[in-house]
Amino acid sequence: MTMFDFAARRSQLDELMDAAGIDLMFLPPSADLEYLTGMQRRVPTFGNVGYAHHWVAGALFAPGLDPVFVLPRMITEFDLPEGTSGEVITVNEMDAAESIMRSVLGRFGTIRTLAVGNRSWAQSVIEVSALCAPSSVVSAEPIMNPMRRRKSTQELELMTQACALVDKVMAAIEKKVVPGITELELAAEISYQMKVNGSKTDSFDTAVWSMGPLDDRDATVRVSTQPLRAGMGVSFDFGSVVHGYCSDFGRTVHVGDPGEEYIRVHELVMAAQQAGIDIVRPGVTAAEVHAATREVIVQGGYGDWFRHRTGHCIGLDVHELPYISEEDHTPLEEGMTFTIEPSVFWPGRVGVRVEDIVVCSADGVQKLNMHPTTMMVGG
Amino acid sequence: MTMFDFAARRSQLDELMDAAGIDLMFLPPSADLEYLTGMQRRVPTFGNVGYAHHWVAGALFAPGLDPVFVLPRMITEFDLPEGTSGEVITVNEMDAAESIMRSVLGRFGTIRTLAVGNRSWAQSVIEVSALCAPSSVVSAEPIMNPMRRRKSTQELELMTQACALVDKVMAAIEKKVVPGITELELAAEISYQMKVNGSKTDSFDTAVWSMGPLDDRDATVRVSTQPLRAGMGVSFDFGSVVHGYCSDFGRTVHVGDPGEEYIRVHELVMAAQQAGIDIVRPGVTAAEVHAATREVIVQGGYGDWFRHRTGHCIGLDVHELPYISEEDHTPLEEGMTFTIEPSVFWPGRVGVRVEDIVVCSADGVQKLNMHPTTMMVGG
Repeated sequence: MTMFDFAARRSQLDELMDAAGIDLMFLPPSADLEYLTGMQRRVPTFGNVGYAHHWVAGALFAPGLDPVFVLPRMITEFDLPEGTSGEVITVNEMDAAESIMRSVLGRFGTIRTLAVGNRSWAQSVIEVSALCAPSSVVSAEPIMNPMRRRKSTQELELMTQACALVDKVMAAIEKKVVPGITELELAAEISYQMKVNGSKTDSFDTAVWSMGPLDDRDATVRVSTQPLRAGMGVSFDFGSVVHGYCSDFGRTVHVGDPGEEYIRVHELVMAAQQAGIDIVRPGVTAAEVHAATREVIVQGGYGDWFRHRTGHCIGLDVHELPYISEEDHTPLEEGMTFTIEPSVFWPGRVGVRVEDIVVCSADGVQKLNMHPTTMMVGG
Repeated sequence: MTMFDFAARRSQLDELMDAAGIDLMFLPPSADLEYLTGMQRRVPTFGNVGYAHHWVAGALFAPGLDPVFVLPRMITEFDLPEGTSGEVITVNEMDAAESIMRSVLGRFGTIRTLAVGNRSWAQSVIEVSALCAPSSVVSAEPIMNPMRRRKSTQELELMTQACALVDKVMAAIEKKVVPGITELELAAEISYQMKVNGSKTDSFDTAVWSMGPLDDRDATVRVSTQPLRAGMGVSFDFGSVVHGYCSDFGRTVHVGDPGEEYIRVHELVMAAQQAGIDIVRPGVTAAEVHAATREVIVQGGYGDWFRHRTGHCIGLDVHELPYISEEDHTPLEEGMTFTIEPSVFWPGRVGVRVEDIVVCSADGVQKLNMHPTTMMVGG
């Protein structure tokens, strides 16, 4: 297991908290907490998992002090095979959770400004706020995202592994794109292959869907039990998780001989991606990358059907700020990793997408995925 | 698709909100929102998915009024293939999200008490609270859980389907429990089989792990790349999702001839489960079911190794209140569905678990899983 310098990260956190006037930060089990302490997130559950006193679950950070974890017993007993680095206060089923949390909060003195992890549970925010009565409660994201957005060499190595894993799975899956197999079978096979090749879990819900002239299907139904049919393009959207780091990847494979429009749109989408990649360098804004990508598709006459942002940063989370999107004017920095994923989704006509992760380097850009973007025809 | 009577549910909600003095309730995409409106949750993502202005995502409920959905454009455009029932305010990438939310909140007049879904994002709680300045912010769980805990006949049908699905997958997987196959391969195969048999996704992270005298493995590592070995018990923990409803299931299969202690512990754990089932009826408390189950294992001499609660209610979420646990004195009611899942996890010695879903009926109890609990030997 790769070991990160958590002490250095926490020392940077102390400086940022001091500068922002934040007295205490509460982080639930999350990418933020994993970044600062190495405490691995459990795979998320569709049906929310919950334990007695679950709202306490997380860690408290104050400048100059070691983090204090407060965890329900079920988490310390069963969900932390790697343990934690730091003091752990365990809340047992029969304990009075409020008293314990009040006592822990008391160690930190007067809390004027409390920061809470962006995705803390509402119940945690309500209870912790009630117990330490801060004058203001703010999101921890403006502190945590800037720390996490520039990836170190070590992080880039893991991102590269996560990208190599999906490249390998796509190479295997392409051979199975034949009429008769269902989208669901392909999607389930992708998840299976990612896991046995070392992915902790899918980084998001794997999607395989067909678009083209044979029906009015849109990109909204991410997978169906429909068997593949010649004449349709099959789009893929999936990602792996390697040591906590996510990949996010896409291609479209045509079933049977493609028509003139599909070929043209495929070329257009690949050209749009290349245009986006070509302008990446430190100082260029996220919105400018979006505009450069989008412009190619607009010029090609399909602007109405490129219906989403060009991409998003990615790392411990699959969608991290900045977003490569029209509203986001953040300048790119060396070490930022993000997707460039233009598409043309025109229901009843044509659907093509491509998605790769790139890293902004000192003098430009580097692509982390190696799978070719040349047009693939299956079946 | 099964259609529920959402109007009746919302009318019950109005009464409960009035009684509790709640002026407005904000629910993010969640089981609560699906229960009240049919808006299906997206499969959760390991790496958090996020869109521009994502904190607005959810719906607002006030007594006597139709719900108002406020959603980032990316969700309305791509994540809601089934649409929503009700008014939708879409927040575009370039919109001023605060102004839009302020304007929507303004429709509801003075908000003294705001309830927020238990697992709303902290960022949503902070922003919505700042915009409507309530005197108090409370969790919506004390309103929503009592509505959801008693399942209707229609809901029980779906729960039964979700249980039949895991029964079927277990019957297929049991045949693959042989030396040499890895836990990871079995776990990935279970997820694959659940999906192709109609599960939307795993209801939680599928677990397959070996315990016994050959090493010190504990139940904390939910899956490994270790090949199965004769002499170990292999425990399973997995669940499916059918029309939003979760199952949660467990068995242990021994690889090769079991020894005397494994046989004794297997009988003990099955007897404990039966003791728990036998006392279920309306009015008995959750803690009493836990105590009845636990007592059998304590009497058998393995009390120190039954290290968790006996179970939890289950439905749209995999863990719902009440918990079948020592701290929970909620009386059971007709229509409650919950797991009874005792175990003996003694690292280096023996690991056995069983888990089935039962429903509390008017005159006792009914088991929703049909897979046998007799001792199975693989390989």
